[in-house]
Amino acid sequence: MTDPLVIFTPSGKRGHVAAGTTVLDAARQLGVDLDSVCGGRGICSKCQVQPGIGSFPKHGIAVADDALSDVNAVEQRYDEKRGLKPGRRLGCQACIQSDVLLDVPPESQLHKQVVRKAATQKDIRLDPAIRLVYVEVAQPDMHDPSGDLERLKSALQDQWQIEDLRIDLTLLKTLQTTLRKGNWTVTAALYQTEGPPRLVALWPGLYEGPVAGIAIDLGSTTIAGHLCDLRSGSVLASSGLMNPQIRFGEDLMSRVSYAMMTENGADEMTRAVREGLGDLVRALAAEVGIPPEVILDVTLVCNPVMHHLLLGIDPYELGQAPFALATADALTLTGGDLDLPTAPTAGVYILPCIAGHVGADAAAVALSEAPDQAQELTLIVDVGTNAEILLGHKGRVLACSSPTGPAFEGAQISGGQRAAPGAIERVEIDTASKKPRFQVIGSELWSTDPAFDHPVTGICGSGIIEVIAEMRRVGLLDASGLIGSRERTGSDQILPDGRTHAFLLHDGEPQIIITNSDIRAIQMAKAALYAGARLLMNKFETDTVDRIVLAGAFGAHISPEHALILGMIPDTDPSKITSAGNAAGTGARIALLDKSSRPKIERLVRQIEKIETAIEPRFQEHFVAASAIPNSADSFALTRARVALPEPRFQAGGDRSRRQRRARNSSSQ
Amino acid sequence: MTDPLVIFTPSGKRGHVAAGTTVLDAARQLGVDLDSVCGGRGICSKCQVQPGIGSFPKHGIAVADDALSDVNAVEQRYDEKRGLKPGRRLGCQACIQSDVLLDVPPESQLHKQVVRKAATQKDIRLDPAIRLVYVEVAQPDMHDPSGDLERLKSALQDQWQIEDLRIDLTLLKTLQTTLRKGNWTVTAALYQTEGPPRLVALWPGLYEGPVAGIAIDLGSTTIAGHLCDLRSGSVLASSGLMNPQIRFGEDLMSRVSYAMMTENGADEMTRAVREGLGDLVRALAAEVGIPPEVILDVTLVCNPVMHHLLLGIDPYELGQAPFALATADALTLTGGDLDLPTAPTAGVYILPCIAGHVGADAAAVALSEAPDQAQELTLIVDVGTNAEILLGHKGRVLACSSPTGPAFEGAQISGGQRAAPGAIERVEIDTASKKPRFQVIGSELWSTDPAFDHPVTGICGSGIIEVIAEMRRVGLLDASGLIGSRERTGSDQILPDGRTHAFLLHDGEPQIIITNSDIRAIQMAKAALYAGARLLMNKFETDTVDRIVLAGAFGAHISPEHALILGMIPDTDPSKITSAGNAAGTGARIALLDKSSRPKIERLVRQIEKIETAIEPRFQEHFVAASAIPNSADSFALTRARVALPEPRFQAGGDRSRRQRRARNSSSQ
Repeated sequence: MTDPLVIFTPSGKRGHVAAGTTVLDAARQLGVDLDSVCGGRGICSKCQVQPGIGSFPKHGIAVADDALSDVNAVEQRYDEKRGLKPGRRLGCQACIQSDVLLDVPPESQLHKQVVRKAATQKDIRLDPAIRLVYVEVAQPDMHDPSGDLERLKSALQDQWQIEDLRIDLTLLKTLQTTLRKGNWTVTAALYQTEGPPRLVALWPGLYEGPVAGIAIDLGSTTIAGHLCDLRSGSVLASSGLMNPQIRFGEDLMSRVSYAMMTENGADEMTRAVREGLGDLVRALAAEVGIPPEVILDVTLVCNPVMHHLLLGIDPYELGQAPFALATADALTLTGGDLDLPTAPTAGVYILPCIAGHVGADAAAVALSEAPDQAQELTLIVDVGTNAEILLGHKGRVLACSSPTGPAFEGAQISGGQRAAPGAIERVEIDTASKKPRFQVIGSELWSTDPAFDHPVTGICGSGIIEVIAEMRRVGLLDASGLIGSRERTGSDQILPDGRTHAFLLHDGEPQIIITNSDIRAIQMAKAALYAGARLLMNKFETDTVDRIVLAGAFGAHISPEHALILGMIPDTDPSKITSAGNAAGTGARIALLDKSSRPKIERLVRQIEKIETAIEPRFQEHFVAASAIPNSADSFALTRARVALPEPRFQAGGDRSRRQRRARNSSSQ
Repeated sequence: MTDPLVIFTPSGKRGHVAAGTTVLDAARQLGVDLDSVCGGRGICSKCQVQPGIGSFPKHGIAVADDALSDVNAVEQRYDEKRGLKPGRRLGCQACIQSDVLLDVPPESQLHKQVVRKAATQKDIRLDPAIRLVYVEVAQPDMHDPSGDLERLKSALQDQWQIEDLRIDLTLLKTLQTTLRKGNWTVTAALYQTEGPPRLVALWPGLYEGPVAGIAIDLGSTTIAGHLCDLRSGSVLASSGLMNPQIRFGEDLMSRVSYAMMTENGADEMTRAVREGLGDLVRALAAEVGIPPEVILDVTLVCNPVMHHLLLGIDPYELGQAPFALATADALTLTGGDLDLPTAPTAGVYILPCIAGHVGADAAAVALSEAPDQAQELTLIVDVGTNAEILLGHKGRVLACSSPTGPAFEGAQISGGQRAAPGAIERVEIDTASKKPRFQVIGSELWSTDPAFDHPVTGICGSGIIEVIAEMRRVGLLDASGLIGSRERTGSDQILPDGRTHAFLLHDGEPQIIITNSDIRAIQMAKAALYAGARLLMNKFETDTVDRIVLAGAFGAHISPEHALILGMIPDTDPSKITSAGNAAGTGARIALLDKSSRPKIERLVRQIEKIETAIEPRFQEHFVAASAIPNSADSFALTRARVALPEPRFQAGGDRSRRQRRARNSSSQ
C-alpha cells in the first residue's frame, strides 16, 4: 500500500506522506506555505484548511469521506470556543489517512501576495521582518535555578528552533510579569533580518491583537506614512504632514546653511524632524485606533540631507564637493534610537543612499520600479527640487541627480504656488485664437465653462509646464524661450513687460501672468533634468530610451505630451511614458512587507553606477542644448511628427546671458 | 645558505625567517607577542625591540653588528621626533639580515602579565576587550561616491583584517569631523568580545592618550571601583563610596520590600544606584586627571538584587521562592544603557549570576579563586549579609548561599558597629584571670598598654568573633552559648543581665558588653554559614576540606583560629586557611583586563551545581548542630588538639527555645 497522496491548492504542490501525518506537517514536508503561530497546539487556528471530498478529475484524485482523521478533543474545543467555518479543519490536528485535496485559504498563507494599487504592477510578497510565535516556558525550579530569560530562550529554541535571541533592556524589565501573567505561556514577536533574531514584543498567552508597521517617506517638504497590518499586509491608514523643519528653510540647501550658521542648528532640526515623525506615527495609530506600541517595524526613505538630519549628523559635508555622506549603507536601528512613539524596541530600517545627492528615496524608487529587472531600457525620473534619475535594464543601472531647483514646485515663478485647490494645473491654448483655457485643482470644469466659478489662486508645476508647452506649440514662444510681442504673435494675451513680453493666462484677482523670467526658470530646471538623463544615455551609448517612468507626486500630474514639447524628457512615444505615483513610498512599503527586499536593494544600490553630474564635462553641453525648447541638439522628431511646432524667432533686449545666446545660436544651426 | 635564525626573549621563541623580513613580521610568523598600533608605519613605536649584539652561548647564537638593517628614513624620523632609547629599534622598520637575538621589552608586549597584589596568586594576562588600531582612510571621490563610514570600514578591513564593524549613532555623528581633523588618518578603539567588533572611540591621527577601564564591585552597602590603564593593565586608582540605595533600606530584603510597597520604588532605586556609579566613575577619573570619556570598558559584579535594581528590573521575584532571576546570563551593555559618564559607547560587561541568591559577585570570586582549577578540595566563603559558599576542585564545583544575616557586620549586636576607627577588632582573654584586652581599628596598641589612649566606639564583626571564641576558650561560655554566672566562672567581668549574664569587655564611655542575645545572634549567623558549607560537603560525600579561602573585606580580618573555635568554618589546620581579600573585586578586574576570562566564567557558572539551602532537608539538621560552639555533631578534633576547650554547662532561665535545648542535648551526647 502506497502512502496517501496529498494535493494542496492553490499552490498545486503534491506528494505522498505517511498515513497519520498531520496536515501541518504534510504542508511543511511539501514546502506548502501554511501559517502557524501556536506551533501545532490547536489554539491559533492559523493553519486551517478546507478539505475537498469527492472526485476531482482535474487533479486526478478521489477523496474519501474519512480522508482526514475525525475531529479530536483539541479541535472540538477550539470549534466550540472560537468557531471554525463549516468544512474547515485545523491543520495541526487533522491527520491524513488517505488521498486528500486540501485548499489553503488566503488567511492561512504565511507569505500572502499583497496587491499594489496599480493593476499593471507586480504584487508584493508578504514576508515581514516581524514574526509571532507562541511558546510554553518552563517554570522556575529551585532544584535547577535559571533565569526566566534563559528558560524563554530554551523554549524558543526547542519549540521553534530559534537560536541566539537578543533582548533589549526595556523588554527584560517586563519579562517576569508577562511570563507570570500568561501563566508561563507567551507570544513573542521577533524581528529578524540579517543576524540573530531580536525580541521586540512579548505578550501573555496567545496574542491575537494588531501587529503593525509603518513605511515612511520623509521628504524635505512633507512626511508621508503608510500604516500597514503586518499580518495581512494591507494598508490600514495613510497620512502626511508638513516636515516641521520647513521653519528652518524651505529647501535643503537653506537647511544645510542653517546648520552651518546657527549653533546647535543641526540638533534643532534633528529634534524637529523626529518630533514630526512622532506626530505622524501617533496620528496614524489614532486613526486606526491602535496603541502606537504595537507598531513593531518601520521603514524609512529620504534624501541624503534629511537622512543625516534625522540621524543627528551635521549635513555640512553634503553642502559642498565632494558631497561625502557620513554613511551610505542601509541602517537598522530601533524606535528608541529615533525617539519614536512606536515600541522602543521596534526595528527601524533606513534604506541605503545611492550617493551624496541621490538618497534612500531614490533607492526606494529603484526597489519599486526595478529597472534592474526591465527588459527595455527604462528611464525613471523623480522630479523634486533635485531630480533623481535612474536609467537601466537587466544587467546595468545608472543613477544621477540633477539640480532642477524649485521652479517645478511653483517657486521662482511669478504666479507660482504649491499644488493646492485653486492652483491652475491644466492649460490649453487655442491654436488659432491663441486664447487660453485652464482647469484648477478642485474643479472638473474648464475655465471657459460658464459654470466655472472656482477661485483661482495661482499656478502649480504641472500648469506651468502645460502653459509654456502650449505657448511654444501655438507660436507665442520661440525655441530660445523668448515670448513674442503682441504684434509678432497677433495675440491679445501678450502684454509688454519691460524689454520683454508676458502672457496673460488669467485676468482676475490675482492676475496670472507668465513672464519671460518664469520661462527662463523653467528652462533652467528642465534643461538640468534633461541633461542628467542625456548624460546617463551617453553612458549607455544610446540616443533613445524604450520607456520613461515619471515618479513622485509631481510626476503623476505631468502631461507627457507637454513634457515632450518642452523637451523635459527624451523624445519618446507618449504611450511609453507612465506615471509610477509615489514610487519612493511604494519602495518603503515593499521594504516593510517583504524583508527579502532589503538585502536585494542593498545589493542593487552597490551595483548601481553613480554618475556625479558636477564633474561630467558633457553635462554642461547637454544643459546648454536643453535650454532650448524642446532642444537645440536633439531633434525631437517623434514629437514634431505628432505636434507641429512653429519656429518663430523673437528678437529681445540685451538682458540675456552669454549662455542663452550660445544656446540660441546652436539651436539656430 | 640557510635563512637567518631569530631568537626572541623573554619568550625564547625561535625560528628561521627569510633574510629581509622585518622584525615585526618575524614576530608574527613565530607567534611572538609584539604590539603594533600603527600597523607597521613607524609612528607608534609599540613594536620596538632591543637587539643583542655579540656572542650568546646560552642561546647558542652569535650576532653580527649588521644583523639588522641600517636605520632607515622612517626610523630616523621617529628617533629625531620622539626619541628611541639607546639600542632600541623599531620592529616594523628593522629588517633581519643574519642571525639575531631580540629582546621584547615589557612595554612592547601585547599580552603583558599584570601582577596581582598577593604574591601567592597567579598574574593576570593582559588581553583587554579594547583594541586600538591606526588606519589611513581613503578620501571621498566624486567619481566613485561612498560614505565616510564605508571607507573607514574598508580601511580597517584592508589594513587590519577587521570585518563587519558595528558603529553606534553617537560615533557616526562625529565621524566626518574626526576623519577630516586627522587628515584621513584616525585611531579607532574597537570593543570585541564575542560577535562582531564595535567601534567605541575614534580619534584623529595617532592617539597616544589614556585608554581606561573600570572594574566595579557593586555591593549593597558600598560601591568599589578600580580604574585601570588598559594599555599597561595597572590600577591607576581605587575608590569606593556608599551605595546611595542605603536610604531605601540597609539590607537587600528591606530594599525588595521598598520596591513592593512604594510606587516607582524600584525605579527610584535604579536611578539612585546609577547615580552612585556615575559619581564613582567621575571621582576615579578626576583622581587620575583623565576625562571620563576615555573609559571604554567597564566590568561589574554584584549580588542578584543589586543586579536587577541596576538594570531597572523590579526585584520582586527575588524576594520569594522560587527566587527566579529575570536573567542569569552575563550581559554586555553600553555605558549609555546605564547612564554612565564613561564614553556612551563603552562596553559594560556584567558577570553572570549563579542563582537567585548567588550573584555575579560570587561568580567573580569563582573567577578570581578558580576552585575549578584546584587540585585540593577548596572551600571558598564570602561572608556578608548573605554568605556565598563555593566548594570544589578540578572537575566539580558546587555553590550555595546561606542567610547569615547582618550580625557579622555588627548589626543586631548591642555594642556592634561597622569596621571603622575606634571599633574593637582583636580580643584576647587571659585564661587564668579571665581579664580581656583588645585592639581597636586605628591603634596598634593593646588596650592594656599604658600608652593606649584611642577612643573606643564599639565592636566590629571580627572583634565579636574573637571575643566569643575567647569566652568559649576560657570557660566563660558553654557549648550551648550560655554565659556562666560570676559565681560559676569566677570572673569579675561577668555582669548579671536579667535571667542571663553578660560579659564586660570595656568599662568606659560607651561600655562595651557582650550579652547573651549578642551570642545568640552570632550563633545563628555562624550556624547558617557552617550549615551551608556542610551541605556542600555532603554532596561531595566528605567530612573535611583541604583548604579554606575567606573572601571579602570581612574575611580578610577574621582570625582563623577564632573562627575555628567558634565552629564557623569546618575543622581544618589553620595554615590551610587563607584570606583572598576582595576576591569579587579581583574577579571583576580579571574580567576587565583579560577578555578571554569572560567566556571562561560563563562556562564555569553554567557548570557549577547550584544548591538551594531552603529546600535541602539536611540544612536544618546541620544548622541545629552548628548552633553549638563549636558544633554538637562534628568533633572539631583538630582544633581541640591545639586549643583546650573546657566544657562547662551553665543552666539558664526558661527563655530558651526547644531548638537550643535540642542542640545542647545533642552536644552532650
